[in-house]
Amino acid sequence: MEQKRILCVGLVCLDIINVVDKFPEEDTDTRCVSQRWQRGGNASNSCTVLSLLGAPCAFMGSLAAGPIADFIVGDFSRRGVDISGVAWQQCGVTPCACCIVCQKSGSRTVVLYDINLPDVCADDFSQLDLSQYRWIHFEGRNADEQVKMIEQVKSYNATQEEKNRITISVEIEKTRPSLYQLFPHGDVVFVSKDVALHFGFQSASSAVKGFYSQVKDGAVLICAWAEKGADAMGPDGTVVHSDAFPPEKLVDTLGAGDTFNASVIYTLSNGGSLQEALTFGCQIAGKKCGVHGYDGILQ
Amino acid sequence: MEQKRILCVGLVCLDIINVVDKFPEEDTDTRCVSQRWQRGGNASNSCTVLSLLGAPCAFMGSLAAGPIADFIVGDFSRRGVDISGVAWQQCGVTPCACCIVCQKSGSRTVVLYDINLPDVCADDFSQLDLSQYRWIHFEGRNADEQVKMIEQVKSYNATQEEKNRITISVEIEKTRPSLYQLFPHGDVVFVSKDVALHFGFQSASSAVKGFYSQVKDGAVLICAWAEKGADAMGPDGTVVHSDAFPPEKLVDTLGAGDTFNASVIYTLSNGGSLQEALTFGCQIAGKKCGVHGYDGILQ
Repeated sequence: MEQKRILCVGLVCLDIINVVDKFPEEDTDTRCVSQRWQRGGNASNSCTVLSLLGAPCAFMGSLAAGPIADFIVGDFSRRGVDISGVAWQQCGVTPCACCIVCQKSGSRTVVLYDINLPDVCADDFSQLDLSQYRWIHFEGRNADEQVKMIEQVKSYNATQEEKNRITISVEIEKTRPSLYQLFPHGDVVFVSKDVALHFGFQSASSAVKGFYSQVKDGAVLICAWAEKGADAMGPDGTVVHSDAFPPEKLVDTLGAGDTFNASVIYTLSNGGSLQEALTFGCQIAGKKCGVHGYDGILQ
Repeated sequence: MEQKRILCVGLVCLDIINVVDKFPEEDTDTRCVSQRWQRGGNASNSCTVLSLLGAPCAFMGSLAAGPIADFIVGDFSRRGVDISGVAWQQCGVTPCACCIVCQKSGSRTVVLYDINLPDVCADDFSQLDLSQYRWIHFEGRNADEQVKMIEQVKSYNATQEEKNRITISVEIEKTRPSLYQLFPHGDVVFVSKDVALHFGFQSASSAVKGFYSQVKDGAVLICAWAEKGADAMGPDGTVVHSDAFPPEKLVDTLGAGDTFNASVIYTLSNGGSLQEALTFGCQIAGKKCGVHGYDGILQ
């Protein structure tokens, strides 16, 4: 039997990455050193990494027909990511980000257009055949609707034997209050350094200890902290840690967090321990920072 | 018989126009107010305007297959511009510009990627069936090659009766020395305010007087000067002038110069006088500055 897929629900967008020598001054014309188009968005990036790791995976998010969607669909297909669950919207525009990456300073400046494309809603989600999936990951966005989707998964799980139940993970990355309602809804919860700092936590270990009361019984809570590695806490209450694995030369950090999440999900979904998952997550995320894009993150 | 076309030779690129409230600071994330994709490039924009004016027209420039070219081809087709003369390049990337337009200050900051796509060369040009065209406009770029193309047109003209001869216009917009060799090669020569200022001329009338010795016998020399209107000089040595026709509210000046050129070419190619052409050019360019993009430039 074919292995069931890991589904990631969230954003996909087009990142147009302009590499410049010097950040442009207002009202001038600059010729950039190079430019590349890349499929972006957290859930979309995590699918790329899952696919590179060899896990059958699928993406669910919104797209609107047009040249941006054409590029994105082509790139998903190149990576072997199933997109049969994409919600094709009749109005709105697929999000596109113009990124200016400055070689000298290492800065990345992002101008994002993400205005009018409706998000995936619980109705769209109810069209899925849940028996195809073994893990569903939600990038926190329209959390009210996402909670309804998670309820659908819980109802499905209640009808299944243990081995067929779907694991649910959620990512709380942005400091947006509506997202905090997701804490009690994941079997695995990723909380960002940004959110942790916002709540006054100064390290990954204090964040996982501090937030653990918010998650449901038996859940795993994970917090990555850039060059400080990542910490996690499971139901036994001990804090697990992995150091970071920085590359020799920092080349491109865009999507490092999404790479970490995917690598952790990959390990846990294959029965690895929390310590194994954290270490592998930090290793692959470190590799990613040493290359442009995602090719080559496995060496 | 179908009317012969006006051919514009030059650049086509994709302009991604991000409208923001405030010009972004380095290393920040900005959400823009709106974003639109627009086919850009001087010759390409002039084709849009010629087509809106009802003149059969064609574009010749380089493209490389891919999502940018798909968008551009679709837009040319929507405007009814013939692109059978496009030189499809096997290497390189179709140019793409990320433009940041700031609503408050009115500034437009452009980050252009135009690096590695070969320009149209004289060999490509020799593939054309020149009997299809009544006017060929060259946006000055790879001038050495463009001079060879113009020689081809001159040879063709030498074999034709007067009524079948092709009129040649050239645009010298950038202050790039190699472009100045184009002055003696146009029946109609457009020189920009930028180039005029670079040579020390402080007005359109002094520019046309000063540059007229550079153009060939019988040629028309035209210089537009933004909100000061435009001046021109023909073989009789008198300076013709039109004031600008500014819109009530300045909305978008991108492509105003290309609109002027197209409107002047349109009028002259239909037998209008130099004064009529200048006035019409200023009128339509003014209309363009009052609307986003090109729809609505005829009211």
